Amino acid sequence: MVATGLFITFEGVEGSGKTTQIEMLRKWLLAAGHSVLVTREPGGDPAAEAIRNIVLENDVAPRTELLLFLASRAQNVETVILPALTAGKIVICDRFIDSSVAYQGFARGIGRDTVAALNEFATGALYPDITFLLDIDPAIGLARQADRNRMEAESLTFHQTVRKGFLTEAENSSGRICVLNASGSFADIHFSIANRVLKILESRV
Amino acid sequence: MVATGLFITFEGVEGSGKTTQIEMLRKWLLAAGHSVLVTREPGGDPAAEAIRNIVLENDVAPRTELLLFLASRAQNVETVILPALTAGKIVICDRFIDSSVAYQGFARGIGRDTVAALNEFATGALYPDITFLLDIDPAIGLARQADRNRMEAESLTFHQTVRKGFLTEAENSSGRICVLNASGSFADIHFSIANRVLKILESRV
Repeated sequence: MVATGLFITFEGVEGSGKTTQIEMLRKWLLAAGHSVLVTREPGGDPAAEAIRNIVLENDVAPRTELLLFLASRAQNVETVILPALTAGKIVICDRFIDSSVAYQGFARGIGRDTVAALNEFATGALYPDITFLLDIDPAIGLARQADRNRMEAESLTFHQTVRKGFLTEAENSSGRICVLNASGSFADIHFSIANRVLKILESRV
Repeated sequence: MVATGLFITFEGVEGSGKTTQIEMLRKWLLAAGHSVLVTREPGGDPAAEAIRNIVLENDVAPRTELLLFLASRAQNVETVILPALTAGKIVICDRFIDSSVAYQGFARGIGRDTVAALNEFATGALYPDITFLLDIDPAIGLARQADRNRMEAESLTFHQTVRKGFLTEAENSSGRICVLNASGSFADIHFSIANRVLKILESRV
C-alpha cells in the first residue's frame, strides 16, 4: 500500500516551541476539514512509550540510547504513522530522524552517517514530506523549560552541538527541512508554517 | 584498554539446555580458581533488564524487536561484559549476537547481513572468543519448557527456521562457533565444553 497522507515533522532544541506550534497547526488543519494525527518521539504506542521511559529515566550508554530511540521510532512508524498515512491522514510527529542525527550523531559523537543509516533501517526508509526546524539559541530555549528530563539536563555546550547538528542537517536536506527562527512571535511562526503546508496541499490537488 | 579475559557465549533454541550447561561450566571454572561472571541476553544491568521486559511482554514489530535486543546488548556490553573482560574475568553470556541473526535475521526475515551489521554497531565489534551452539530439534527443546514467553510461544516452524539460522551461522563462523549435539547427556556435553575451554585457556598461558 502506498501512503497517501502528508507526513510533517517538527525538530528543534528543548524549549524551541515545538509543542505550541504543533497544536496551532493541528487546530488550523482540523478547522480546514483535514484528518490529523499528532504523535511524538520517543513514544507513540504503549511499547514505544515504555521505551521512552527507559531512555529518559536511566543513565544508558550512547549506543543504547540511540538504539532505544530507534526501537521506539520503528514501533511508532509501524503501528501509528504508516497506518495513518495509508488512511490518507496528515500526521504530525514531534521529533523524528533528525533528532537522532543531532543528539546522538553530533552531540553524543556517534557520527552523522552511522545514525542516518540506522534511521533508514528503523523507519523502513520513510522520510517526512516536510520538516520544520524551530531554530533558537539553546540558552533561551532551556530557560523556558521547568522540569528537565535526562536529555534536557545535559550541558549548554551539549545543546549547542545539537543545534549545530540540526542546522548542518538542514543544509544537507534543504528541500525537506525548513528552518524557522523560533525567537519570533508564535503567531508569525505559525503563519510561516501554515503557509508552507498550504502550498504542499495545493500542489497535490 | 584491551580486554584480557575470556568471552564465552551459549546459543541454541529454547530448551537446548543452555542454563544447565552454563551453570556446570561456571562451577567447574570457579573450582579451578577462575574469576567468572555469568550474564544473559536480553538483560544484564537494570536498564537492559527493563528492555528485556518490554520486548518479551509486548507484541512489537520485527524491527522494533531487533532494535530492543540490540539496545539491551549495547548496554550489557558497555556496563557488564567489557568491564569484566578488562578485569581479566571469564564472562559467560546466555545468548549474544548469533541469537539476533537466527531469530530476527532468519526467522523474522530481516536478513542475515543486515542483522550482522547492526550487531557490530551494538557491540562495538566485540566478538566472543568461543561460542557453544547447543543443537537440538526444537520439537524436543520446546517440550522441555513449561511457561513460555512471547518468543518461546512462536510456532514450531519458526523455531525450526531459528535452528537452521544457527547452523548456517555456525558453518560461516566455524572457527568461533562450536556445534554440540544437545540431545546427549548433560555430563557428556559438559565434558566437551570443559575440554574446549581448557584448550583455549592452556593456549593462552
